[in-house]
Amino acid sequence: MTIKPIKRTCVAGAGAIGSLFACHLGSVAESTILTRRQEHADQLNRHGLRSSGKTERQAKILASTNPADLGDVDLVIIATKASDVEDTAKRLAGHFPNAQVMTVQNGLGCEEVVAKYGDWPIISAVTFMSGNRHSDIHVEYELDTATWMGPWAQGKSTFEQVRAVEQLIERSGLKAKAFPDLLPAQWSKLIFNAAVNSISAVTDLPHVKAFAQRGAITDLGHLVHAMMDEGKRVANARGIVLFEDPWEMNVEATSHGQTGDDDYAHAPSMLEDVRAKRLTEVDWITGAIVRAAVEAGVPAPISETMYRLVKAREASWKFNQH
Amino acid sequence: MTIKPIKRTCVAGAGAIGSLFACHLGSVAESTILTRRQEHADQLNRHGLRSSGKTERQAKILASTNPADLGDVDLVIIATKASDVEDTAKRLAGHFPNAQVMTVQNGLGCEEVVAKYGDWPIISAVTFMSGNRHSDIHVEYELDTATWMGPWAQGKSTFEQVRAVEQLIERSGLKAKAFPDLLPAQWSKLIFNAAVNSISAVTDLPHVKAFAQRGAITDLGHLVHAMMDEGKRVANARGIVLFEDPWEMNVEATSHGQTGDDDYAHAPSMLEDVRAKRLTEVDWITGAIVRAAVEAGVPAPISETMYRLVKAREASWKFNQH
Repeated sequence: MTIKPIKRTCVAGAGAIGSLFACHLGSVAESTILTRRQEHADQLNRHGLRSSGKTERQAKILASTNPADLGDVDLVIIATKASDVEDTAKRLAGHFPNAQVMTVQNGLGCEEVVAKYGDWPIISAVTFMSGNRHSDIHVEYELDTATWMGPWAQGKSTFEQVRAVEQLIERSGLKAKAFPDLLPAQWSKLIFNAAVNSISAVTDLPHVKAFAQRGAITDLGHLVHAMMDEGKRVANARGIVLFEDPWEMNVEATSHGQTGDDDYAHAPSMLEDVRAKRLTEVDWITGAIVRAAVEAGVPAPISETMYRLVKAREASWKFNQH
Repeated sequence: MTIKPIKRTCVAGAGAIGSLFACHLGSVAESTILTRRQEHADQLNRHGLRSSGKTERQAKILASTNPADLGDVDLVIIATKASDVEDTAKRLAGHFPNAQVMTVQNGLGCEEVVAKYGDWPIISAVTFMSGNRHSDIHVEYELDTATWMGPWAQGKSTFEQVRAVEQLIERSGLKAKAFPDLLPAQWSKLIFNAAVNSISAVTDLPHVKAFAQRGAITDLGHLVHAMMDEGKRVANARGIVLFEDPWEMNVEATSHGQTGDDDYAHAPSMLEDVRAKRLTEVDWITGAIVRAAVEAGVPAPISETMYRLVKAREASWKFNQH
């Protein structure tokens, strides 16, 4: 079976991650962006999209608020927050009959949502790269770590198709890795994210070295470790052999290179959401583990605790106007 | 045995609670205050101390930063935060040979600290009243609930002495209740406080009705209940039969009278500390349960989780200057 070459791409949701994809793909394909705001589309059509930081790129972009304006797209990357995937999939319904659709949200469950609105082959992905969106037309490429992808297990995408997307993204200057089965990698990241994001969101702590410290009884590393152990037991009960150990990912991520300087610690997205008083993605991340634990009959008291605390922190905003 | 009448009292630590005691005791005894700041003493000596709200009182106060200036005191009430008890006890050492000393801190363990600095009879107390300190010379009496007191089990205070203090405080216009053994009441409040304060401190939620809701899996009441259950198992392992059920205290406290209006919900002291970026009393409250659980060999994963989260939230201040 020959794979149709990918000549035209569409990113739906040009936040930091979406902008990074669209900007880089502009060097290897026709890059289009489906925006929500007309002004965002106007800016992109006029000025294109620039990346700085780990790469320097200037891409020509075709942007619109209407998918019908974007032509016959071969690959759609949905890069919105998990909570916006349903709205985005509704807008895509009836368009792009020849496209594969890739989801790159944190957590679990977005593929099912997309599949309700079209019979596109669906690629599951998780991304470890990060960016800082300076404006509608300028994104800074910060962490140049990979995006992992694989055929969604309940869909019709094939590993060969995923390999073609992997190669396109690699040629564009970003990092990608294709897996025949993404679930082991997806669950590694899910367990990592559930612990790091939830704990960060309620403590206000960026992902500092304390997350890996397990000396005194009050040390935060004990909590991170216990929560990840619960996640691993849930994954195990579902027959998933993790790709990477989330605890080792945590130790690695908090070592901050040679300096070990916490000043460079990353603020996880849930903490950024809490600081901005935006609803977090906890339902798709920590909530996904709690639901899977209930289904599997595996006790997960720490995960339940963290899920409830993040939801309570979201609820606090209506009481605290200070 | 006849009980020496209480003619002169000294409050050490005139925050909201200390000011309420000193102001009311002024109507039934000579009321003195040991202050930390000279200006605070000057203000009190000049203007006395006023209460408004649930009572209206204007008391004459003798105040000083030096215990030697305060005369032969019969009763000392240490009303500082738990973290300041050691400093206060050091200042009292060698003074007030005829006094009983009462501690009213949240949590456990302050009596031991006081006993290191003098052989006074020690009264254990927990207070449920609350006040709002408007200035050095004006405190508003908010919640007119009782202070519970009893002879410290490891000391030489007697129930009769405690009864005399109870009666003095009642005559002064505050509410008090003496117990032959305070531990059952102290542990009821400890378990209540550990859950309500820790959860409030990391979620930013005042003590609203959500703390008692147990419908959906994300409801906060599940967490409060699970954490209190751990505390009860620890108390049980120590042979303590609780005076009141902490969960029922929680349900009662969140019903906010007839209106059930969350706008009147109380901000627990740990939340106030977190908002002001002051160190909390978590070591004496949640920490006391965690240490007792370790001693008793009772698992307490939720209490450990909350203890670590509050400590981490305190640690976050050095990373977040925003």
